[in-house]
Amino acid sequence: MSELLERAREAFARQAMMQTFGAELLEAAAGRVVLAAPVGEHLRQQGDLAHAALTYGLGDSAGGYAAWTTLPEGSDVVTVEMKINLLAPAAGERLIATGRVLRAGPRIVTVMAEVDAEAGGRRTPVAVLLGTVMPVTP
Amino acid sequence: MSELLERAREAFARQAMMQTFGAELLEAAAGRVVLAAPVGEHLRQQGDLAHAALTYGLGDSAGGYAAWTTLPEGSDVVTVEMKINLLAPAAGERLIATGRVLRAGPRIVTVMAEVDAEAGGRRTPVAVLLGTVMPVTP
Amino acid sequence: MSELLERAREAFARQAMMQTFGAELLEAAAGRVVLAAPVGEHLRQQGDLAHAALTYGLGDSAGGYAAWTTLPEGSDVVTVEMKINLLAPAAGERLIATGRVLRAGPRIVTVMAEVDAEAGGRRTPVAVLLGTVMPVTP
Amino acid sequence: MSELLERAREAFARQAMMQTFGAELLEAAAGRVVLAAPVGEHLRQQGDLAHAALTYGLGDSAGGYAAWTTLPEGSDVVTVEMKINLLAPAAGERLIATGRVLRAGPRIVTVMAEVDAEAGGRRTPVAVLLGTVMPVTP
Repeated sequence: MSELLERAREAFARQAMMQTFGAELLEAAAGRVVLAAPVGEHLRQQGDLAHAALTYGLGDSAGGYAAWTTLPEGSDVVTVEMKINLLAPAAGERLIATGRVLRAGPRIVTVMAEVDAEAGGRRTPVAVLLGTVMPVTP
Repeated sequence: MSELLERAREAFARQAMMQTFGAELLEAAAGRVVLAAPVGEHLRQQGDLAHAALTYGLGDSAGGYAAWTTLPEGSDVVTVEMKINLLAPAAGERLIATGRVLRAGPRIVTVMAEVDAEAGGRRTPVAVLLGTVMPVTP
Repeated sequence: MSELLERAREAFARQAMMQTFGAELLEAAAGRVVLAAPVGEHLRQQGDLAHAALTYGLGDSAGGYAAWTTLPEGSDVVTVEMKINLLAPAAGERLIATGRVLRAGPRIVTVMAEVDAEAGGRRTPVAVLLGTVMPVTP
Repeated sequence: MSELLERAREAFARQAMMQTFGAELLEAAAGRVVLAAPVGEHLRQQGDLAHAALTYGLGDSAGGYAAWTTLPEGSDVVTVEMKINLLAPAAGERLIATGRVLRAGPRIVTVMAEVDAEAGGRRTPVAVLLGTVMPVTP
């Protein structure tokens, strides 16, 4: 496991909401992070689809951690704004969110994230996010 | 309790994620809905702030239910897209989200939501959301 | 004419695009600016509606100038991101954009703008914008 | 010239604003359209950068025409909402906007667009847009 992935997982493990979501951080490279979470029964809408708050939460975090990988060690990030476009119903066993940095400026970082739903081993894009995060010192 | 509020609460109670959030639907009038949820420990970031997924989830739901109040009985809504701008750290005992309809068209409904954090009885705006929802037949 | 309005108009007059749009700055107060532009034939879509680039351009500028009013003299602003939701066809003789500051932080300013179309003296909301601007030193 | 490109150019030529921008439609394929416009002096901010209304207008149009290519002949599109994130100052001789369809549903189409500035033959990404368009019958 790379040192960056290790540090990212440590930071990720401190996020109580990500534990409530059962999310795990699968990959972390410079400017790119992948998260996943099972679509637990407690995270659904009225049917068996994932609630948009789960889809959003994973996408936002994937984008935020992708930005975090580009910052000096010890930095933290906050979301300034984030937009999500839902492409298809989030049906499946788990959601996988891939965040990447579009541009890392000194004051703000622009990120994108794509969220797929995995059902029977097959992935379908369910959302795309575009947003801005800001480095902060904890 | 008005008949609309009663129907809204029934629909809301079927959302598993809203139960995970401990959210309740406080008010429902034509084109306006108010939700609230305590900032539970399981819904936080690394510190004691609410995670953006909670802020988003409440705002998105407040907007969606506000749209729902303008539709024929038996309708349902899905979020097409939603943007959130975070204004301040979500610090407090609970979050209160007020959603309202900006325009209800036949095919799409444009909504806004404001999310406040309540700390010691004092409310601070922490986020504003602007988005589009679409009526669907369940 | 207030000193703030005078300074705002001077800055506005240097924007070539605003001249192409025939736009004028009607009001400027702390955190609030109003712009207007006739829906010239050169600014339309295929029909006689205003093109979304005009609606966006006025809304973005109204929000940006609203932020500008909250900054020290000599500051400039750039748009970080801006979202527009179109509410109705932009039909009328002129568009009027009202921008206001939702929150002025030290590093970024969150703004909203509403754009109305005026037809026969009657105003109809045609768009709402929500975005982020950043102070810069020219 | 393909029949699709020919039809797209005919539709594009009816947009008065695109003529004001000096824009031309370079490419049109199923789900993908490329536009370009010189950064004319009348389309600038106070400096020699393109005004955000130009960047937005080209990106919005590229996305809208990309959606249009996926619809039955004779259809038209309107923008429901569009978000732009500005990545870098729009400095250069011309802007090039590439729109593509992320998902074409029966009721709405989700699109993205990237806008590059070309300076001395070298292209720099200056903006990315993510939005929703809706088919309409003219």
